[in-house]
Amino acid sequence: MHSRAILHLRSYTTKTAVPLTATRFPSIKRNPAFKTLDSNDIAAFKKILPDETSVVDGTDPDALLPFNQDWMRKFRGQSQLVLKPKTSHQVSQLLKYCNDHRIGVVPQGGNTGLVGGSVPVHDEVVLSTQAMSRIRAFDQESGILTCEAGCILESLDHMLAEKGYMMPLDLGAKGSCHIGGNLATNAGGLRLLRYGSLHGTVLSMEVVLADGTIVELGKPLRKDNTGYDLKQLFIGSEGTLGIITAASILTPLKPKAVNVAVLGVSSYESVQKLFQEARGHLSEILSAFEFFDASCMALVQKHIATSRLPFDTAAQFYVLIETSGSNKDHDDEKLTTFLDSVMEKGWVVDGTVAQDATQVAAFWSIRESITEACAKEGPNYKYDLSVPLPKLYGLVTDMRQHLSQVGVMTDSMSGKPFVKQVVGFGHVGDGNLHLNVIASEWSKDIERAIEPKVYDLVQTAHGSVSAEHGIGLSKTIYLSHSKTKDAIAMMRSLKQTFDPKGILNPYKYFPNKE
Amino acid sequence: MHSRAILHLRSYTTKTAVPLTATRFPSIKRNPAFKTLDSNDIAAFKKILPDETSVVDGTDPDALLPFNQDWMRKFRGQSQLVLKPKTSHQVSQLLKYCNDHRIGVVPQGGNTGLVGGSVPVHDEVVLSTQAMSRIRAFDQESGILTCEAGCILESLDHMLAEKGYMMPLDLGAKGSCHIGGNLATNAGGLRLLRYGSLHGTVLSMEVVLADGTIVELGKPLRKDNTGYDLKQLFIGSEGTLGIITAASILTPLKPKAVNVAVLGVSSYESVQKLFQEARGHLSEILSAFEFFDASCMALVQKHIATSRLPFDTAAQFYVLIETSGSNKDHDDEKLTTFLDSVMEKGWVVDGTVAQDATQVAAFWSIRESITEACAKEGPNYKYDLSVPLPKLYGLVTDMRQHLSQVGVMTDSMSGKPFVKQVVGFGHVGDGNLHLNVIASEWSKDIERAIEPKVYDLVQTAHGSVSAEHGIGLSKTIYLSHSKTKDAIAMMRSLKQTFDPKGILNPYKYFPNKE
Repeated sequence: MHSRAILHLRSYTTKTAVPLTATRFPSIKRNPAFKTLDSNDIAAFKKILPDETSVVDGTDPDALLPFNQDWMRKFRGQSQLVLKPKTSHQVSQLLKYCNDHRIGVVPQGGNTGLVGGSVPVHDEVVLSTQAMSRIRAFDQESGILTCEAGCILESLDHMLAEKGYMMPLDLGAKGSCHIGGNLATNAGGLRLLRYGSLHGTVLSMEVVLADGTIVELGKPLRKDNTGYDLKQLFIGSEGTLGIITAASILTPLKPKAVNVAVLGVSSYESVQKLFQEARGHLSEILSAFEFFDASCMALVQKHIATSRLPFDTAAQFYVLIETSGSNKDHDDEKLTTFLDSVMEKGWVVDGTVAQDATQVAAFWSIRESITEACAKEGPNYKYDLSVPLPKLYGLVTDMRQHLSQVGVMTDSMSGKPFVKQVVGFGHVGDGNLHLNVIASEWSKDIERAIEPKVYDLVQTAHGSVSAEHGIGLSKTIYLSHSKTKDAIAMMRSLKQTFDPKGILNPYKYFPNKE
Repeated sequence: MHSRAILHLRSYTTKTAVPLTATRFPSIKRNPAFKTLDSNDIAAFKKILPDETSVVDGTDPDALLPFNQDWMRKFRGQSQLVLKPKTSHQVSQLLKYCNDHRIGVVPQGGNTGLVGGSVPVHDEVVLSTQAMSRIRAFDQESGILTCEAGCILESLDHMLAEKGYMMPLDLGAKGSCHIGGNLATNAGGLRLLRYGSLHGTVLSMEVVLADGTIVELGKPLRKDNTGYDLKQLFIGSEGTLGIITAASILTPLKPKAVNVAVLGVSSYESVQKLFQEARGHLSEILSAFEFFDASCMALVQKHIATSRLPFDTAAQFYVLIETSGSNKDHDDEKLTTFLDSVMEKGWVVDGTVAQDATQVAAFWSIRESITEACAKEGPNYKYDLSVPLPKLYGLVTDMRQHLSQVGVMTDSMSGKPFVKQVVGFGHVGDGNLHLNVIASEWSKDIERAIEPKVYDLVQTAHGSVSAEHGIGLSKTIYLSHSKTKDAIAMMRSLKQTFDPKGILNPYKYFPNKE
């Protein structure tokens, strides 16, 4: 989960035009089967997209850069062409052309991903959903929203708020990310604990397949048991099976009352106990249970001027609890009973409850500033891991110990690149740990000290190497830590079935064949 | 949704050994590519399943009947062999043998389906999950249950209740249906409004593919974004892509307080207004919103001795509202506020709130007795439709009008088969209507009067021809009312990819090719 400040981050990172891909990833050979663009292709694309703002080509390299590079500057492709269709029909014509001529295509939404999934590797064409941002329908009675892929998550949330509804997902990149990208990456985020995953809330989808076929998958209905639930395949497929152009989503009613508390606790065991107690006391109104360690809090205090610790006592761990309900008095009473119980049991060092909407936002901003604060401390090796709750924070301490043992946690006096800190935070309610290794600089030695060790630890703990960020480019070689050989073979069969020429988001998602 | 009395129904229906398939469905030609079983095959199966209780063969036709016939006696196959493996490894060996020899296989759970999906058509082998009912794991902290396909839904719910949890789904057939069948048919039922569909609550699955490959799809984690979410394909695939042998399911905490109210209202418009009001007032504690018309209530009063109307005033429609929460006082207050509001607005004719657990069960039994009551009145042509809420009950009135116009709602004096009643009930919260046409006897003329008219009406209303019952054998020809040509082509590609010899649940799910 990265920060709400992503737009800001992107603006400063794109100024530094240093390609970093080469320093962190082994070079990936261009697939010679893909056609190199020529003037005929450009002409054909311009015929499909007659509006001149719809095509960005190599005549303006600066204009291409934001599409070629991710916001962390970790990945940089060499695309010479960005296409911004306005309709599904245009997407269909573009893909048909690319498929017929075997031209690689990278679907791109807000380009806020963390695993290099949304930027090209070589000269693939970027197909951006920026110009597809219409609301097609909203049903006030059922809360079913039908919108195009390029709608920005936060804009949708604002639009819904006026109608008494909200999006079932929320994440730090909400101001930039596109709903199409959220769907293609099965975005998790801050509301998953309460509203569940997109696999449950997406009702239907419009998808364009590699050959240009526009296909309607499902209907905007809560129940529809007519055939395979094909839309599910595209949720989390990262643009490798087709391009999502629109979707219908079941949106929940906006809660009438929201409470947020930040609590300090002295051990990870207490974090777990607090979570169980919260499930019992807060139950149906519990909408978030986030945690971060003392190192995260210290970095936020150091780097983010606007974020202050809301109480005086320092603690080893901090927990942010949110409740959302329909009756403020009832929610307050449940929260008070919960807090009395955990205070009495001695599980909480200190804590405070937001008194108004401004404080609610301020408390959330602490949690949401962590990524930005970590980034200001130095380059971050970021891991997004799913681990059974009892073993979750053990991964952080194990990594600290391991990195000390292999000698990369030396101090800055050595002159060599070193690891400054290993910090952990995330969504306790979902068993999702974000582990950041903050280094003095990008370095192959440090990377080798971390990987594959971190993934081996996850595998031993029966976890997942990617809880919510996906596979993209950076985790392909670790897919087998979370998926069996047979499951990967099934994935390849699906890819072959729906994109036999492999034009969609090439080089990603799948491990290289042995 | 059929009745809790399903076991009883089955016991009396299997006594009357009249094959009814022929009277209601056009004959389906046996696929000559399938091998006819011989003694070598039987010997091979017996070698894989050495326990003699694991194989039921043609030496005892009575023992085969319950596997060949559905509980409504609408569908009857001619299988001569039932296999009851005890382990996934045995399932694997059996499927490998059947695939190698091209022997058709029908996976069967509790055989409680309503569309003929779980019984053979010709001489396919029945692979029953009856002997696979182990709990593999239950995690008290997270509520994640891992169990085998043959576990009975109600048994799981009872087991979980002792641990403070519950299954996220509930349906009338709970006493007989297997969780594997629930998954394979994407069962909806009574708790979907609150806990969402199985697409959101199933975390992982063990599946055996047609060629015998045992594949683990996902892990028992809340979040796992590593590759295509393959398990989703099997949810609702009705045994056509593989056999589900085990699954991990996220189970919710059992609520501490449950309230049930039954209200009478004078119009369908009031049902809708009540639902919107309930969403606002009851919000996070609303766990069911069911409705049934006066005809349903009259049939329950007539045929089910134990079910009484809980108040005196007759109404055109009845609504059953359930709340589930963690604080009885809060829930009572919310419910009272809601009831005061709707009474004051004049939307409710009469109503009552259950005073204790016995009354809760009694009120639910009215709703759950409807299927049994309808069945006692005569043969039922049953339709399970998803329709946007404003148009939902219009389907019932339109069908009544249509059947009158075409002259099949004559009285019994004519001597010809006739339609006695058209009744409607279902899950308002899910936009799911159960429409039953109750006839004096099974008749091709009546069937032709209803179909395809009912499906045309659904298509016009942008609904689904199967909300939760699935496709099975009885809805294959109407699949195209809910799915586009391209979506059906994608389904066929998937089937071809994972079951190229077509051995799994043949003749079902897909429309015959033109």
